[in-house]
Amino acid sequence: MTVQFDRIALIGIGLIGSSLAHDIKRLGLAKEVVIATRSAETLKRAEELQLGDRYTTSSAEAVKDADLVIVSVPVGASESVAKEIAGSLKPGAIVTDVGSTKASVIAQMQPHMPENVHFIPGHPLAGTEKSGPDAGFPGLFEGRWCIFTPLENTDERALKTLGRFWETLGSKIDVMDPAHHDKVLAIVSHLPHLIAYNIVGTADDLGTVTESEVIKYSASGFRDFTRLAASDPTMWRDICLHNKDAILEMLARFSEDLAYLQRAIRWGEGDKIFDLFTRTRAIRRSIIEAGQDVDAPDFGRPHTLDKKV
Amino acid sequence: MTVQFDRIALIGIGLIGSSLAHDIKRLGLAKEVVIATRSAETLKRAEELQLGDRYTTSSAEAVKDADLVIVSVPVGASESVAKEIAGSLKPGAIVTDVGSTKASVIAQMQPHMPENVHFIPGHPLAGTEKSGPDAGFPGLFEGRWCIFTPLENTDERALKTLGRFWETLGSKIDVMDPAHHDKVLAIVSHLPHLIAYNIVGTADDLGTVTESEVIKYSASGFRDFTRLAASDPTMWRDICLHNKDAILEMLARFSEDLAYLQRAIRWGEGDKIFDLFTRTRAIRRSIIEAGQDVDAPDFGRPHTLDKKV
Repeated sequence: MTVQFDRIALIGIGLIGSSLAHDIKRLGLAKEVVIATRSAETLKRAEELQLGDRYTTSSAEAVKDADLVIVSVPVGASESVAKEIAGSLKPGAIVTDVGSTKASVIAQMQPHMPENVHFIPGHPLAGTEKSGPDAGFPGLFEGRWCIFTPLENTDERALKTLGRFWETLGSKIDVMDPAHHDKVLAIVSHLPHLIAYNIVGTADDLGTVTESEVIKYSASGFRDFTRLAASDPTMWRDICLHNKDAILEMLARFSEDLAYLQRAIRWGEGDKIFDLFTRTRAIRRSIIEAGQDVDAPDFGRPHTLDKKV
Repeated sequence: MTVQFDRIALIGIGLIGSSLAHDIKRLGLAKEVVIATRSAETLKRAEELQLGDRYTTSSAEAVKDADLVIVSVPVGASESVAKEIAGSLKPGAIVTDVGSTKASVIAQMQPHMPENVHFIPGHPLAGTEKSGPDAGFPGLFEGRWCIFTPLENTDERALKTLGRFWETLGSKIDVMDPAHHDKVLAIVSHLPHLIAYNIVGTADDLGTVTESEVIKYSASGFRDFTRLAASDPTMWRDICLHNKDAILEMLARFSEDLAYLQRAIRWGEGDKIFDLFTRTRAIRRSIIEAGQDVDAPDFGRPHTLDKKV
């Protein structure tokens, strides 16, 4: 069964917002899509791409009479959006978000939400390292998880309606506590991004090895990190600032483990090193078996001969 | 101009050795290829795959009358191979290796090399996370760098002959000092692998987030690390032990930078975080411009809709 809304308001039209726009249009999920973003330039680009039906720089204007409001902005902007839209929301509307941290988004938005709307925090685990309205594409959410962290007293019908919306986009739904969500994401997403940013920064800072050498020889391992380290800086700065406790805990564990490995290298403890390297190999196998990554060598990157064959 | 050798001996038949075997056969670079590996099981598999013309578990036997000997074993095994083959090498033969650390391989092999052979240490920067004789494929070296770290008094003609061999496989040649090679590789390859192994280990150890959650949600960033962390444990243990100084130096820099980032998160210094995240994005652009990685989002991994289209 397909859900249809009379009007959907998309607040923010970056990678996630524009991918939503593509899918809503493709699947016919709304009679009207209204797009709002603060930047006039981004808004113009969204209009050129024909992502919606109406365009405005005012979030308050966009949410008027919308049955579904999806806030897709850097998590640090959640409170200002909530304040701006609060007075214009239609009674009975569903308001959701796509933020990568949940406790902070709830703390920022919930206090401003009127009692007669359904605020359901959400997080689709989907994306690429690209950003902006040109980065979106139809099918981004297909086969991906969407996690809801509903508040107490969330209306079951509204939750089902929102669940069906994401399922129509091809997503699988999970429900969890906001604090647990923030811990899970700290390890599976936030720490990997931080580490990737950090190692790319370290390589950039070296005096003895030139940057051109780093780039030239990057295929020997380094380049795998650069994809995550090319992610949107504003989005990721906000995530760092808004999931601070869980991230600092994971960083502490990571550093502790790294010190252990470093010591094993210094003292030539080959067995300890070998044990770790064997254990991690098994995890990749599990990820491939779970269908969460491709098994092709090098992520399936083309090798030159493949192109010729 | 194609080089041709009467006999090539491949000592070790893992990913690199077997890829060499495929290419030597495909390009007709030798009249005879002799394959040696210590493990009878691996040797049998190499024979089933028809990778060579003769097969033996004795490296000494394999190198007899060979004009080119390529040692492709974990770097920690270099000395025992050198000792084993030293007495059987043909005068005038070229002996090279493919090890990821160069100072250590030279220290292990050079003292055993007879004066009448040309020992030229080498390192093709090519590979995937797979290992063993089944992992090899034709064209692995196409478009990749091969670094030579020649010793003093290396015969220019032998160096040219070996260079042409790798160029025939499609590689580009670089020449550098062994110590500089080891530093460059420490940052572009060894540190990234270590960090990847470490973060995958940390995720595996968590109590609050289950391993199944890590696997289930790994597409949000974590999975990018698991490819490197699935690399051959023996090979990488040996690299850690045999490029210790350069690796410990890079680890120290990395940890220092990570502490700086951690402090910025703790104290909410958004500007410092934003600056790093912006700088790293530029490096990925350079890598893509240099043709060292694909620009397709997600390393070009298929998104479900792509398959349908």
